[in-house]
Amino acid sequence: MSMTEPQWDGLVVGAHLATLDGAAGYGEITDGALGWHDGRITHVGRRADLPASPERLAREVIQADGWITPGLIDCHTHLVFAGDRAREFELRLQGASYEEIARAGGGIASTVKATREADEDELLRQSLPRAQALVASGATTLEIKSGYGLDLDNERKMLRVARRIGERLGVTVRTTYLAAHALPTEFAGNSDGYINAAVQWLPQLHSEGLVDAVDAFCEGIGFTPGQTRRMFEAARALGVPVKLHADQLSDLGGGALAAAFDGLSADHVEHTSVDSVRAMAGHGTVAVLLPGAFHVLRETKLPPLDAFREHGVAMAVATDCNPGTSPLLSMRQAMQLASTHFRLTPEEALRGATTHAARALGFNDRGALRVGARADFVCWNLRHPSELCYWLGGQLTHGVFAGGRQVA
Amino acid sequence: MSMTEPQWDGLVVGAHLATLDGAAGYGEITDGALGWHDGRITHVGRRADLPASPERLAREVIQADGWITPGLIDCHTHLVFAGDRAREFELRLQGASYEEIARAGGGIASTVKATREADEDELLRQSLPRAQALVASGATTLEIKSGYGLDLDNERKMLRVARRIGERLGVTVRTTYLAAHALPTEFAGNSDGYINAAVQWLPQLHSEGLVDAVDAFCEGIGFTPGQTRRMFEAARALGVPVKLHADQLSDLGGGALAAAFDGLSADHVEHTSVDSVRAMAGHGTVAVLLPGAFHVLRETKLPPLDAFREHGVAMAVATDCNPGTSPLLSMRQAMQLASTHFRLTPEEALRGATTHAARALGFNDRGALRVGARADFVCWNLRHPSELCYWLGGQLTHGVFAGGRQVA
Ligand SMILES: [Zn+2]
Ligand SMILES: [Zn+2]
Repeated sequence: MSMTEPQWDGLVVGAHLATLDGAAGYGEITDGALGWHDGRITHVGRRADLPASPERLAREVIQADGWITPGLIDCHTHLVFAGDRAREFELRLQGASYEEIARAGGGIASTVKATREADEDELLRQSLPRAQALVASGATTLEIKSGYGLDLDNERKMLRVARRIGERLGVTVRTTYLAAHALPTEFAGNSDGYINAAVQWLPQLHSEGLVDAVDAFCEGIGFTPGQTRRMFEAARALGVPVKLHADQLSDLGGGALAAAFDGLSADHVEHTSVDSVRAMAGHGTVAVLLPGAFHVLRETKLPPLDAFREHGVAMAVATDCNPGTSPLLSMRQAMQLASTHFRLTPEEALRGATTHAARALGFNDRGALRVGARADFVCWNLRHPSELCYWLGGQLTHGVFAGGRQVA
Repeated sequence: MSMTEPQWDGLVVGAHLATLDGAAGYGEITDGALGWHDGRITHVGRRADLPASPERLAREVIQADGWITPGLIDCHTHLVFAGDRAREFELRLQGASYEEIARAGGGIASTVKATREADEDELLRQSLPRAQALVASGATTLEIKSGYGLDLDNERKMLRVARRIGERLGVTVRTTYLAAHALPTEFAGNSDGYINAAVQWLPQLHSEGLVDAVDAFCEGIGFTPGQTRRMFEAARALGVPVKLHADQLSDLGGGALAAAFDGLSADHVEHTSVDSVRAMAGHGTVAVLLPGAFHVLRETKLPPLDAFREHGVAMAVATDCNPGTSPLLSMRQAMQLASTHFRLTPEEALRGATTHAARALGFNDRGALRVGARADFVCWNLRHPSELCYWLGGQLTHGVFAGGRQVA
């Protein structure tokens, strides 16, 4: 390569950078320059410190304004499903009881039915726009769970669709096996039998490359801590990391249970005890806050936010995109709800949607703008990063890049 | 015109219609057809009832799918302003006291200062993207208030910018004179003197064609009912309709006061008494619900929703788009918040954003899909209109038409 040939694939100049590199603050670089090559960041600094004629540095030089942040990371979604639950939502607002809704075919069983009935292409067709909406809102990494199939073939179908979404959109997708989400009707009254079956499907799906992590819904209306433990032991036997729907509606010690398995994260955590917080801190388990479900369900019990801060538990923020309790299609909206309902500062919400969300998925190559990290970043029409939490609605991105390629 | 020449400018087929024509229900027409000419709707019906070869009927035939609703009407905004208050928002979340925020230059005074300092073109440049976001969310009619100028020249500047926004975006803008919004520093301690001045500016601005309605902020921290009455009498003398920021933080009888002047609407109305509700019903005064401010301020006192229903007071829903208490850039988001916080059904929220919002602005030519109405409509990617309130975030429009012309 001669000296005059550009070293980098791309360089963006003219915007301020919120690098989030460092333990606190936005990591601001005023009038910055961000370069990348082969999908990785190669340069982060001030434009003034670039050599003259930046067009000699990069094949493409992009003029931006506003601010650039790391790509957002949605670390908890159930976005692959068929049908929707808008009718059930409407019935509830019309005053229908849960029994009436169940009789009208509502609830998670209706999503399981629709998801089972859709073939793989149809499931992709219905799910893709939701993933596109999240990417348009700034997400460059998505976690997607199974859990509406509830048998081997249909869980496989969901996870395959999740993988195809990543390929289609050019973003990273992490798949999570969540067969322990609900009890399918064919196992009614036999939740232990269902967990046995779900534990047996896991190695098969893992061998097909479809399982990046294992999750369970540990709750009075879900599965017991004992059943969760059996699922987690199966994951550990395969070397697959775990995460948990923990303590959303009651304290079953879910935070501590996730920590005991060195879990990546405990999610929801509204009712998590301080003992669990300590355990999470000791094992580096991230607390994933899901303010969309909190909002839709009009919950009032706040997660132990001060305890998380005091014990140094990282807090992530995610959409929980799902048809029942959080039909949320925007990471920025999740951040806004986290600041309104949970009083997260804009900086905490942004770290929760980037650096801490990366940890909740086991990534150490993203979530901040630093040399060597994946070139995942978003160009925003903003005067200050705090506006990410301030505005409700609106379209504030003017470029979303994943691995150095523009994806929205 | 020969028989073979198309009669209409446009015809859209292939979507279901939620006409909202009639007192209750969505006014659904399955697989409908909507035609228009010279900016007015000329045909509403089933596609099957059209004559063969629809391309002979209209110069342009548009294939849509999903649903078509009337254009949304945002009947309460303060979207013309300079600067933003994101820094104040961040300080508040960091635990700053109101005194500290005031010392840091926050509060409405900071918006007045920035708005006064911006010239008309700069004010338009900063405000236009907010109006564009609302139009992209489905709004084809916007109300825009003054109230950050607080002197003759700066109130005029705001109202002129509001008019220019309507021209630039091809949507209807209704201007509202809200000099009685806050007390400018130059009148500190002399609110009666300020109201006297603001009453004198009104005929001048009205004669310039800048005032479609008059509003006031009647509240303990705003202006008294007596001061409001003086402003409303000046409006009545000019034949200009009134509306009122009423009973947001306390019950000052604002609902009844607006009704006594045959007010188009009383807005906020969280603390409105049943006596006021009766007065509003008697005078046809619409209750404008503003769930964005309720959400951001984390209010808990609900408007008297059942009393409005019982007495037949129409309820509209609006964004209240403003930099302090409701930085809300989406009509659909306002509808979602109305259903979450106020338990409006999706149908109530949609009527609140269309037919009832039209009444709140004194329009009888829009808010429903019927022959003769303005051809303001929105094509949505939906399976059912209830989804308008169900999804949080996402971009669900695939065409916004105002007066028969596509504006987003
Ligand atoms: Zn979940
Ligand atoms: Zn207002």
